[in-house]
Amino acid sequence: MMQALAGKKIVIVGMGLIGGSVARALARLELTAEIIGVGRDSAVLEQAINDGSITGFTTDLQTACADADFILIAVPVLAIAKVLQDLAPVLSEHAVVTDVASVKQAVVDAARNVFGAVPANFVPGHPIAGSEQSGYAAAKADLFAGRKVILTPLVHTNPQAVNLVTALWQATGAEVLQMDVVHHDEVLAATSHLPHLLAFALVDTLSQQGESEEIFRYAAGGFRDFTRIASSDPVMWRDIFVTNSAAIVGILDEFTADLNQLRASLIAQDAEQLLTLCKRAKQSRDVFMAMNSGAVKSKSSKSD
Amino acid sequence: MMQALAGKKIVIVGMGLIGGSVARALARLELTAEIIGVGRDSAVLEQAINDGSITGFTTDLQTACADADFILIAVPVLAIAKVLQDLAPVLSEHAVVTDVASVKQAVVDAARNVFGAVPANFVPGHPIAGSEQSGYAAAKADLFAGRKVILTPLVHTNPQAVNLVTALWQATGAEVLQMDVVHHDEVLAATSHLPHLLAFALVDTLSQQGESEEIFRYAAGGFRDFTRIASSDPVMWRDIFVTNSAAIVGILDEFTADLNQLRASLIAQDAEQLLTLCKRAKQSRDVFMAMNSGAVKSKSSKSD
Repeated sequence: MMQALAGKKIVIVGMGLIGGSVARALARLELTAEIIGVGRDSAVLEQAINDGSITGFTTDLQTACADADFILIAVPVLAIAKVLQDLAPVLSEHAVVTDVASVKQAVVDAARNVFGAVPANFVPGHPIAGSEQSGYAAAKADLFAGRKVILTPLVHTNPQAVNLVTALWQATGAEVLQMDVVHHDEVLAATSHLPHLLAFALVDTLSQQGESEEIFRYAAGGFRDFTRIASSDPVMWRDIFVTNSAAIVGILDEFTADLNQLRASLIAQDAEQLLTLCKRAKQSRDVFMAMNSGAVKSKSSKSD
Repeated sequence: MMQALAGKKIVIVGMGLIGGSVARALARLELTAEIIGVGRDSAVLEQAINDGSITGFTTDLQTACADADFILIAVPVLAIAKVLQDLAPVLSEHAVVTDVASVKQAVVDAARNVFGAVPANFVPGHPIAGSEQSGYAAAKADLFAGRKVILTPLVHTNPQAVNLVTALWQATGAEVLQMDVVHHDEVLAATSHLPHLLAFALVDTLSQQGESEEIFRYAAGGFRDFTRIASSDPVMWRDIFVTNSAAIVGILDEFTADLNQLRASLIAQDAEQLLTLCKRAKQSRDVFMAMNSGAVKSKSSKSD
């Protein structure tokens, strides 16, 4: 799969956690490819070239992309439309473009708006990997190792473009899957966007209590884990919440309905109902963990 | 502080995660004290004596406690009343009793019901330490190192009993604080009980989606951390939810009100409001983490 990338000019637009980690992962493979970082902050780009993550950089997107073979757009969802607009005049027909946003319908819509139709060589993608940390400083070569990347190609997407994007992610150690755009946004709303929303909301509710400092002082490890994702990048999450709002509200409403039932059980001090809930949730979570550790194991034994 | 425990007969009622960890912590100190484990499962008690965590054991509470100097009750909240009832006929006047439950008003009420008035030597307590794991197998000697233990003595509680309980927890490496019963239950409702409720509820909501297996398959590390506490012991949490329901419903309602506002921002795709929330929450959470790591540091430098 690495041969597919050899000799190519790969441009990474946005050298944050994800873009920087892709650069680091590719650098470690010692491809003969040219890897160009594009960003607004030249200090970060200089850091990346000093690290050996990239072979060159520019703050000018069009210069970088005019003769690119592969363009990976790693900026927050709402910034993608502007990148595509800037890209449109210089994009060569053979260049393959992908993105990393956690919302796919909004990206497809942006591409359609800019290009009239979504280009056949544009492959929407989403690595399910991340961290509450953000920025190039948090980037690491193994961020995608054993993680899933979901591609959401459209019916007219060029299969060879899909193959190239697949090859890139597989080269970083990820497992690549395909999914329908709408389905992706619904699944991610449930597993990622809603939990982040709840974590942001809970921390915000508690921080606005009169005794908030004391509340935080007596919080323990469970709270730390539960709210870890509330330390995530606010702009990235603002963009996800805005662009996937319908799917998020859908699952939020189901959650709120369940929470209201639970509230009734609390008020009634209904021990039986509460035990049923706790048992069922623990069982589901334990099954999830077993699935998850199984996946990680089979992944690492594959790469051994 | 360890001298206060030397030569005493210490009985630990309930050899689960907390009781077992206290036993292990005390065993490591090589006190001359007798440490007796009481539980229902003699296989666990035999394991504990083989580990050297306890010096003796029995499944008969009254036998163990008749001549005890110190009794630590480490069973779920709703099981405490029964323990106190069994204890009442044999409890000597000088024996100091404490518990470890995450809800304190219900424990105080149980003691008042059983004894007519809360005994002067009964010191309600709560170590803010735990894990999503449970049972003696998960117990470890350093579970309380650097953690906080909150005691909630009443006005007529014997100061010497408070001192002894403080000495015990300090011997495990914990920092001991005092708080009013009602205030304790409100603070814990916010920092611990509500997050657990949300985690149980979220996992339950998602597990009841038609596509639940697929949802869990695409969940990543953030989800794992966020839902870790949903793997906690169901009986223990059922008991906490039942006995602290008023305080939990109070903070739940504030949270739900904030969540409803957030829902309105989502529907309006109000980027500015959503960014404000994310930024404010991230800032609060980062401040919490800084407070927390500061506390851990000052603790470990003290014990060095």
